[in-house]
Amino acid sequence: MKNIEDVREGVKAIAERAKHASRSMATLSTGLKNQALVEMADHLEENHHWLIAENRKDISTGEKAGLSRPMMERLQLTQSVIRGMSEGLREVARLSDPVGEVVKMWERPNGLRVGKMRIPIGVIGIIYESRPNVTSDAAGLCLKSGNSVILRGGSEAFHSNKAIGQILRQVLVRLKIPEDAIQVVPFTGREAIREMLQLEDQIDLIIPRGGEELIRFVTNHSKIPVIKHYKGVCHIFIDESADPEMATRICLNAKVQKAGVCNAMETLLVHEKVARPLLKKIGKAFRKEGVELRGCPKTRRILPSIKKAVEDDWYREYLDLILSIKVVNGIDEAIEHIATYGSSHTESILTSNYQNAERFIREVNSSCVLVNASTRFNDGFELGLGAEIGISTSKLHAFGPMGLEELTTTKFIVYGNGQTRG
Amino acid sequence: MKNIEDVREGVKAIAERAKHASRSMATLSTGLKNQALVEMADHLEENHHWLIAENRKDISTGEKAGLSRPMMERLQLTQSVIRGMSEGLREVARLSDPVGEVVKMWERPNGLRVGKMRIPIGVIGIIYESRPNVTSDAAGLCLKSGNSVILRGGSEAFHSNKAIGQILRQVLVRLKIPEDAIQVVPFTGREAIREMLQLEDQIDLIIPRGGEELIRFVTNHSKIPVIKHYKGVCHIFIDESADPEMATRICLNAKVQKAGVCNAMETLLVHEKVARPLLKKIGKAFRKEGVELRGCPKTRRILPSIKKAVEDDWYREYLDLILSIKVVNGIDEAIEHIATYGSSHTESILTSNYQNAERFIREVNSSCVLVNASTRFNDGFELGLGAEIGISTSKLHAFGPMGLEELTTTKFIVYGNGQTRG
Repeated sequence: MKNIEDVREGVKAIAERAKHASRSMATLSTGLKNQALVEMADHLEENHHWLIAENRKDISTGEKAGLSRPMMERLQLTQSVIRGMSEGLREVARLSDPVGEVVKMWERPNGLRVGKMRIPIGVIGIIYESRPNVTSDAAGLCLKSGNSVILRGGSEAFHSNKAIGQILRQVLVRLKIPEDAIQVVPFTGREAIREMLQLEDQIDLIIPRGGEELIRFVTNHSKIPVIKHYKGVCHIFIDESADPEMATRICLNAKVQKAGVCNAMETLLVHEKVARPLLKKIGKAFRKEGVELRGCPKTRRILPSIKKAVEDDWYREYLDLILSIKVVNGIDEAIEHIATYGSSHTESILTSNYQNAERFIREVNSSCVLVNASTRFNDGFELGLGAEIGISTSKLHAFGPMGLEELTTTKFIVYGNGQTRG
Repeated sequence: MKNIEDVREGVKAIAERAKHASRSMATLSTGLKNQALVEMADHLEENHHWLIAENRKDISTGEKAGLSRPMMERLQLTQSVIRGMSEGLREVARLSDPVGEVVKMWERPNGLRVGKMRIPIGVIGIIYESRPNVTSDAAGLCLKSGNSVILRGGSEAFHSNKAIGQILRQVLVRLKIPEDAIQVVPFTGREAIREMLQLEDQIDLIIPRGGEELIRFVTNHSKIPVIKHYKGVCHIFIDESADPEMATRICLNAKVQKAGVCNAMETLLVHEKVARPLLKKIGKAFRKEGVELRGCPKTRRILPSIKKAVEDDWYREYLDLILSIKVVNGIDEAIEHIATYGSSHTESILTSNYQNAERFIREVNSSCVLVNASTRFNDGFELGLGAEIGISTSKLHAFGPMGLEELTTTKFIVYGNGQTRG
């Protein structure tokens, strides 16, 4: 453990270098950025023995510290995980470069042509836990979007992150791209994070990824804009006119295809007119999958053997094979329930009624609102962004999955021929 | 002065009500919003005697407190200022409604149609000083974009802001729009601001408008995203190939048409190959307008009678008839100077050279970058946004003037027909 002053100065120096590098990054050609991404992918695979050896140091520390099994699993670098990281970088190389795109352009009565052009944000700080693959994923996306990145992973993955960063930087050096565009913070402990969050003149955006405690810590201490989401309490509302087969299939998918993720369904709302046949059918399907059901009084009149849902259940992100169910008297009560208990993450309506589909789309202001589809589609890859650096439920700048475009901003560009203001 | 606990509870109650109102605001029809704006405009004009009487209370307090003359001028409500406020509201009524616009839509291989739809941000807090017309301008823009607004003006305009708020709310009540969508905070003193800035669960965005000290206070104390700009150190670079007549006209316009504004030129950069004839010509024109010039050594060899520019001058936003001038050896040095000393606000290149125009547009990442036009065009009305609630030099969410669109965010909408994730 270094002393606090050293940590502060070290972090500040990293941020200063990142800012300096960001100026060159903003004007890098697409060709060179893509070349770097592809060479990074190759270089990671070529060095997989060394990466796995470095990762073993973290694994053995983690074992001694008694980390949980899921944590250990997320921490581990295998040849297949490394191949996945490389594939990710190659995929980012294939995405189109957002920098320089003119998103619209119009002409003013005085002849000025005014447009909005995409530019990088500048310096992005990523603060994350356990998974070392975030190091290369985030570095790749920031590189492609012309940003410098400062990567501050968890202490549990210290050696792994450092090794990955070193490999990526070797490619930058080889291609004469400023290596300080990708930096891994070599300080563990919260003091380094605290210092990062003060550097508003050097760092433009902070993206925290990890548990709610880490994200709250970052939000509460940051002078820099933070884009994040706390949790996903996602709902499906089965309307009176929903197709029962489709409803069963989508509900199952939304809950059990992967239960521990933010876009899994946590609460099911069912129209009272179809509650009895549907809940019998769906209840049976869920029980087969080992899902624990918790219901409102009306639900329990239909499925008497299930647990009672208490007030707190409606706020819960279970991240597990547990589902709360409420019978509602129609779309109004469904929308009201979502507004009261939801987390603005993902909600889906299953219906054959045009008016209700449109009302749900218009009136539910979550980051992703779906009709007749699983909540699990709220994901950058699934929605077609090509990649994802995180999901935002803050409404500013980005709301929903963030891809390359969300790592840029736009400036106004104006082409004149001598105009002055009257 | 109320006690601190009362202020805190009062501000929190205001924010809770604003949040509650924001749900109805998000689904208000364009027709009803426009009707409200037009009726507000009429209602302000009908009540101009009362407004002026209420304003007189502030004026007399300001006189006793010895406010500066410019401050007193900004504070005063006259019949013509009130007419301007009404006209502003009518103009916002004529702008198209951003809410509900689908900015793009695409189809996924599995048949999902994915789009991004504009929705209101929610609750917006405006923290401002002196000018009471901000009360109606900001309220009108927030109403049209479907947001609730909390207006916290300066204590010097207490009675004026309260009166304007009351008139606007009377129209809301008459039209059965939730009146809490527009609220004027009735507490003076910094404690009310400090409390507002903590309410991240109720308020989605803070926009401070006023002096740098107020804006720094807000930024440093806010848990809520803040969109702001500190200052505008705007540059014009006269390239070797610039038309001398045009250059003189644009430079004069950028400096003297209105000197005390954030988009006025503060530093002029001139290519050394044309510095002598141009600076002679422009220097003469500026002297005629009473502009004080401060030059680098090379400038002073051409204009020996002017003051010396010291290092600090290059950082200065004079907001006055003062201009610093630097002779540079070409576009590289100009871009470097802007990156070092600029404030990312507004920069213009005057040139006939295609490559240099394009390089400047691409490589200078200020909120507005112009070719052959005055810096004074960096303004919501002039760029064609129809209105302006402020200018942002933060890169997140909005960069440059903010109009109605910047008071919205987008959610993902997904139309499916039974899709589940594999």
